[in-house]
Amino acid sequence: MDESGVATVKVNLGERSYPIHIGNNLLAKRTSLLAGLDRVSHAVIITDSNVGPLYLDQVSEIFQEAGVRTDSYVVPAGEKSKGLASAESIWNWMLDVKADRGSFVVALGGGVVGDLAGFAAATFARGVRLLQIPTSLLAQVDSSVGGKVGVNLPKAKNMVGAFYQPCAVWIDVSTLRTLPQREYLSGLAEVVKYGVILDSNFFSFLEEHVDDLLAQDPAVLVSVVKTCCQLKATIVEQDEREVTGLRAVLNYGHTFAHAIETLTGYNQWLHGEAVAIGMACAAKLAVRLGMFPEELAQRQESLLSSLHLPIRIRGLAADKILECMMRDKKVQHGHLRFVLPTTIGRVVLVPDVSRQQVESVIDEMQDLSL
Amino acid sequence: MDESGVATVKVNLGERSYPIHIGNNLLAKRTSLLAGLDRVSHAVIITDSNVGPLYLDQVSEIFQEAGVRTDSYVVPAGEKSKGLASAESIWNWMLDVKADRGSFVVALGGGVVGDLAGFAAATFARGVRLLQIPTSLLAQVDSSVGGKVGVNLPKAKNMVGAFYQPCAVWIDVSTLRTLPQREYLSGLAEVVKYGVILDSNFFSFLEEHVDDLLAQDPAVLVSVVKTCCQLKATIVEQDEREVTGLRAVLNYGHTFAHAIETLTGYNQWLHGEAVAIGMACAAKLAVRLGMFPEELAQRQESLLSSLHLPIRIRGLAADKILECMMRDKKVQHGHLRFVLPTTIGRVVLVPDVSRQQVESVIDEMQDLSL
Repeated sequence: MDESGVATVKVNLGERSYPIHIGNNLLAKRTSLLAGLDRVSHAVIITDSNVGPLYLDQVSEIFQEAGVRTDSYVVPAGEKSKGLASAESIWNWMLDVKADRGSFVVALGGGVVGDLAGFAAATFARGVRLLQIPTSLLAQVDSSVGGKVGVNLPKAKNMVGAFYQPCAVWIDVSTLRTLPQREYLSGLAEVVKYGVILDSNFFSFLEEHVDDLLAQDPAVLVSVVKTCCQLKATIVEQDEREVTGLRAVLNYGHTFAHAIETLTGYNQWLHGEAVAIGMACAAKLAVRLGMFPEELAQRQESLLSSLHLPIRIRGLAADKILECMMRDKKVQHGHLRFVLPTTIGRVVLVPDVSRQQVESVIDEMQDLSL
Repeated sequence: MDESGVATVKVNLGERSYPIHIGNNLLAKRTSLLAGLDRVSHAVIITDSNVGPLYLDQVSEIFQEAGVRTDSYVVPAGEKSKGLASAESIWNWMLDVKADRGSFVVALGGGVVGDLAGFAAATFARGVRLLQIPTSLLAQVDSSVGGKVGVNLPKAKNMVGAFYQPCAVWIDVSTLRTLPQREYLSGLAEVVKYGVILDSNFFSFLEEHVDDLLAQDPAVLVSVVKTCCQLKATIVEQDEREVTGLRAVLNYGHTFAHAIETLTGYNQWLHGEAVAIGMACAAKLAVRLGMFPEELAQRQESLLSSLHLPIRIRGLAADKILECMMRDKKVQHGHLRFVLPTTIGRVVLVPDVSRQQVESVIDEMQDLSL
């Protein structure tokens, strides 16, 4: 962290390396931000109807003060905007505002905006530069780092997309103050995930700072977001395109989560909430397979619960969840694969789990209080 | 060329290197073709209504004999299939046939199929492997090599896409026998282009083999296609993503051509025909700018004419063409840039040509015989 309180994480991908700047009130530190970007002639800012009214003017001014032409496009807030119809509207609009290869796309918002605008940047004119300004915790610790961009098909989430790295990421943790509390907590599920999969000390730090996290202490937030970005960068640097299997560790909890989200039409649970349930299920599956101690599964459940995150499935039958999982793009050659923990801080990829074991865990994880 | 008459060009892009196999009746040489491809579990063959009836069974059998599951999708022949609606149908269909990251897409057809199927491969599940089997001359010498994939927007050709390299390209020059003569000749425009931009000996070879080219002599075709692929590979290896400007040499004639195609609704001229007109215009512009001898422009026009290719604009006003050029994605910061020859075998990028010069050349290149 430098004297202004800004921490920087460098993501090293050879020629396509890029910095992630993290700070409290970062967007107010205008001049220094633009200094790191080459040849900016035209900023195409894409945001949504929640974030636009709060931050679009502030971000536009960063560019306008530097003499950069800006255009902006506002999509309706929500997962429904992450579809081909939105992408098509954005592509046509970019053509109308004369975006070209000297332009770059600024994704200002949460995961939906980042994925959608990132996909537009990856594909318009076969790729223009991308700047991510994530304003949700989920986007700050996860979706803005690592280059996954894309949109949903009606029958499958994230099924159309690309691996496309930004030229920079600007993270202002003060934007979390305008995030609805439920969305903020949802983002903490991905934060906990990093502890479970990669870093037991970080997991302990989170256990010790539950109150600071719930109160959104700025210094704790900068530190937590920085650690998450560093951990994710380490993985992405080694397996950018999910080829070696290493990057798959980031999918811990996500095979369950995607099925739950798909079956509930993406509107019962926020993504992080579904991931919290998914991590609880994955840990239970690991216990069932004899590879993870019951007490560590309990410790994970306790931390998730103390952050007010759900850990049980509500009203979805096991056979429906399994059918949905088989269509997940992480399924290869019809085999169910899961990222499962062996201890806090370490996960492995288990390539062929039987349907019966998974069904049995799903049955056990049903919330019977309803 | 090996004893079976198959020539191979290797495109060297580090980890993503791939072979281009070129032969007469190549698709009949089944076993040897699949040997070079790893872990093929599912082939998703995309073709069109012209090529499907001719070659789909033959290509499917190559995979089925090796025990590979195949599915196939046939789009209507023609440029209209190269749009977002087709891409969306293909993505949904791939989901229905349970394509996953172990699948790969086989693009069987001309440039439209290669670009469309290539874009589907680049974006489905953030990228699955791609095998190109180009069956038109244009696709064999140009669009199947180098990784440009994409679709058109209603107002701009190739505006949505990616740079995405195939894992292999199989070129069977015998498929050219079923290509309409006009399309075959259109492909020769791109062949001539390679001579003008990169290789004066190759240009002379073409001048000497006009009759063989018109008669589709198989040995001459294998040799010509191989040379074109080698020349293109050399460029793509040095500038895969059109960053350094080197790859831009391949756009010789294309700034004019794209404008002509756009203004005529993509149905008056075939792409290669528009490129032939575009090369004639570019050469004339170079003469006008004093950088290219008039007699070499004449020599290019003679070769194009002997191959029955058009070299004059018909009925399009200069101001309309210019307005259209300004929207081309090769335009940067509003400056008109052209790839122009200095001699046969060498072109340079001229970054800022005045509108007046371009308009004047367009006026001069109008076909007044109509």
